Amino acid sequence: MKYTLGDLAKEVSAEVVGDTSYIVESVATLLNAQSHQVTFLTNSAYRKQLVSSQAGAVILSKDDSVECPTNAIISTNPYATYAKIAALLSPSESYDPGIHHSAHIDNDATISDSASIAAGVVIESGVIIADAVRIGAGCVVGKNSKIGAGSVLAANITITHNCDIGERNIIHPGVVIGADGFGQAIENGKWIKVPQLGGVVIGDDVEIGANTTIDRGAIEDTIIEDNVKLDNQIQVAHNVKIGAHTAIAGCTAIAGSTKIGKHCRIAGMVGIVGHLEIADNVMVTAKSLVTHSIKEAGVYSAGTPLEPSKQWRKNTIRFKQLDSMAKRLKILEKQISSNKNTAE
Amino acid sequence: MKYTLGDLAKEVSAEVVGDTSYIVESVATLLNAQSHQVTFLTNSAYRKQLVSSQAGAVILSKDDSVECPTNAIISTNPYATYAKIAALLSPSESYDPGIHHSAHIDNDATISDSASIAAGVVIESGVIIADAVRIGAGCVVGKNSKIGAGSVLAANITITHNCDIGERNIIHPGVVIGADGFGQAIENGKWIKVPQLGGVVIGDDVEIGANTTIDRGAIEDTIIEDNVKLDNQIQVAHNVKIGAHTAIAGCTAIAGSTKIGKHCRIAGMVGIVGHLEIADNVMVTAKSLVTHSIKEAGVYSAGTPLEPSKQWRKNTIRFKQLDSMAKRLKILEKQISSNKNTAE
Amino acid sequence: MKYTLGDLAKEVSAEVVGDTSYIVESVATLLNAQSHQVTFLTNSAYRKQLVSSQAGAVILSKDDSVECPTNAIISTNPYATYAKIAALLSPSESYDPGIHHSAHIDNDATISDSASIAAGVVIESGVIIADAVRIGAGCVVGKNSKIGAGSVLAANITITHNCDIGERNIIHPGVVIGADGFGQAIENGKWIKVPQLGGVVIGDDVEIGANTTIDRGAIEDTIIEDNVKLDNQIQVAHNVKIGAHTAIAGCTAIAGSTKIGKHCRIAGMVGIVGHLEIADNVMVTAKSLVTHSIKEAGVYSAGTPLEPSKQWRKNTIRFKQLDSMAKRLKILEKQISSNKNTAE
Repeated sequence: MKYTLGDLAKEVSAEVVGDTSYIVESVATLLNAQSHQVTFLTNSAYRKQLVSSQAGAVILSKDDSVECPTNAIISTNPYATYAKIAALLSPSESYDPGIHHSAHIDNDATISDSASIAAGVVIESGVIIADAVRIGAGCVVGKNSKIGAGSVLAANITITHNCDIGERNIIHPGVVIGADGFGQAIENGKWIKVPQLGGVVIGDDVEIGANTTIDRGAIEDTIIEDNVKLDNQIQVAHNVKIGAHTAIAGCTAIAGSTKIGKHCRIAGMVGIVGHLEIADNVMVTAKSLVTHSIKEAGVYSAGTPLEPSKQWRKNTIRFKQLDSMAKRLKILEKQISSNKNTAE
Repeated sequence: MKYTLGDLAKEVSAEVVGDTSYIVESVATLLNAQSHQVTFLTNSAYRKQLVSSQAGAVILSKDDSVECPTNAIISTNPYATYAKIAALLSPSESYDPGIHHSAHIDNDATISDSASIAAGVVIESGVIIADAVRIGAGCVVGKNSKIGAGSVLAANITITHNCDIGERNIIHPGVVIGADGFGQAIENGKWIKVPQLGGVVIGDDVEIGANTTIDRGAIEDTIIEDNVKLDNQIQVAHNVKIGAHTAIAGCTAIAGSTKIGKHCRIAGMVGIVGHLEIADNVMVTAKSLVTHSIKEAGVYSAGTPLEPSKQWRKNTIRFKQLDSMAKRLKILEKQISSNKNTAE
Repeated sequence: MKYTLGDLAKEVSAEVVGDTSYIVESVATLLNAQSHQVTFLTNSAYRKQLVSSQAGAVILSKDDSVECPTNAIISTNPYATYAKIAALLSPSESYDPGIHHSAHIDNDATISDSASIAAGVVIESGVIIADAVRIGAGCVVGKNSKIGAGSVLAANITITHNCDIGERNIIHPGVVIGADGFGQAIENGKWIKVPQLGGVVIGDDVEIGANTTIDRGAIEDTIIEDNVKLDNQIQVAHNVKIGAHTAIAGCTAIAGSTKIGKHCRIAGMVGIVGHLEIADNVMVTAKSLVTHSIKEAGVYSAGTPLEPSKQWRKNTIRFKQLDSMAKRLKILEKQISSNKNTAE
């Protein structure tokens, strides 16, 4: 795709300082961009690369534009503007509507004429595939599930029965939606399976990373609200609810029945135990374990710092003495304070 | 399915207090259950919902039944009773026996007439599929593997060669059983692959969650005993052995050759390093790292508490000083004790 | 396969002490090996099993060979020698070249005549499959990706578009290579997808464990260099670079744009945050979180020790008091020192 800077800026409501008729064709990094390429500056760590950039244009803030050696696309939110411009210059591939001859579609499934179903896809009875849905090779959609308009299922994805996927979802390879939640009752030392009878309901504009798993509810549904963004290898247990506009980084796991608020940002490898409530606008830093409900917006952390192992070994052994150290400290404080009193 | 409370109670050896001829059709949560629905009370946190429940019947303990406003199904183990009743009211779907025309079955595989093989399944030579096995779409079963009677493989599952899966297993989508263990020898700074020649042996009544991986043994087999319950995204390395009736929550990883006892309960995101032995009846809490063998039953933990990040940052920095703090504390104790002696 | 010890030793440049004409057929553990089986001793924990071993031959160091009760294959690196001997005695299965009739190969894909493509495989346009590649059942290879000579893709693997996989790679089931990186820009509280336009470039002799995910780059490529060994369920985010001969154990996650050096060994469940640089020859122990760049080779750790939960609960609560404890300790030190001065 080719755009003049003027046309591009118009599309994304930004302002050009420079040659509005200059043509750009693709995006690149600040370091490697050449003429006819657009790049962006958001991270101040890269500001020194700006002055020597060979880019055809740079998306940046008004403040940073002072030092821009080339055409500037000025935005109050350069990263969001970059996202839109990159999408314009590199549009997602379009797929021809139709059903590959090797796909297996149950007679009782309803597939929109504008949907594109790839090779080897299996769609069971009662499924509804809406307009402009793309289902990639090797995906399986179980009985009575629905895929909303414009959603894309990449490849080798499993959606089990009675799952309701919204519109414009992007689901990456290997995702499993609707597997049974982990419900086990114990009787005489033996586990009995608790039937998992709820479904999964996913809103609109959700993105789900590769090999992430979202379990079906035990009785009621597991719920992912609109515009939630899930990275790869996340585990969402039964009856979890994730509020709209929450983003979660890779390998985080959320145990059963926990409710996460809206606009939260959960970093990677975080664990959140079951039956908690996390307020809106909560951030949790990488690898923390959340063991209690969080009622106030804010940033939360757990964990210990990385050290050379030799030193760490000495310190971590002391962790086991922490309670006794605290008590001994208190005793010392009392002794000193009484010594003082005695001395006075 | 419809049952009278009397018939239902008889099936699960429980006692009805109320109208034994009352008909129930489905299960629901305590909060949302309506007439002709059964619910249960096990978690005391929900007891206040009991008095206003609109349920047709509630499964609960004798003690809790005093406050039950509707028909009561009294059980010494309400959750297990609920599991059984839910299974009766919502039986698993049955599948017609037979092989989908698009499945690829090697001529040297043996498939029971009562097995159900879905679209796109690939079964290699020497495989034995026993009675009433259900293999869902997109599954691959490698050479000489066996699937025991009544086992269900959901969809997009890979079982490699020479794996022995027992009876009545439930295996969820995306599971990989029998991939090579991570065996690498180093020679002159370069890794050489160590062939992984063992298999995987899985007992009866095992459940394996979505995208969990169980590697084949290096020389001998990786072993999962009867009635083990594994949640999603668990990693079981080569030559691990998991004892019967042990349950493990999501995203836990067990390194090579570690043996876990029977009746253990391992929480989510736990790491267990290699070559350890964990006794029977051990519980490990969420996100702990197990670095040594555990010889006694009991509950074990590791980790630090979640805090607002501002406070956490101050505390975690101190972790690096722990050993020095311990030493300084000791010095102070000596000084005070000698001051005292001097003073006396 | 059958070998005389003499022939075997010659192949792997080792020395036999004993009967060079003795025939061996397979490998086994030191404990269970029988006649005509080869085993090895590398871990001193197993040395006591040596004297009573029934093995036909044992691969071991010169020092250990003194106590060897049977034929010895002497090596300065017994584990690497074992790896080679095991590969000779149990060669990987060979596959007949050719394309299964149920595979779906785009007309614009190029498949070597010596490649073996299994049932249900989907290969899109522009793909190049080199000589002696084996692609197992259910794999999907997206547009314009390349698979180098001799690489093996096990089953149910997804390689998306524009990925470049080197030679002699071994990729295990469920792996996803080239899914979109997690790029999200926020605008007015709503997430906007940042197009992920880079690819994935993987060198030669790389092994990738089951259900591991390697995301494509945002603008430039994600890079895995030669002879990198990745265990199961690892998450490699966009624009990560992993240096040659680095090995990473299961369930580790590496966030975006982090560069890991050569010859590193990262243990399981480690988290490495984004935009870091890790030097060559760094080791990180299990479950550590790496939050800053590491400039020097060495061993690094984080975390707290496993304890009985009762004790752990007492200690972990004190973690929140660590900063205050450190300050109180300092105050005491001053008081004592001033008391002393006063006393003097």
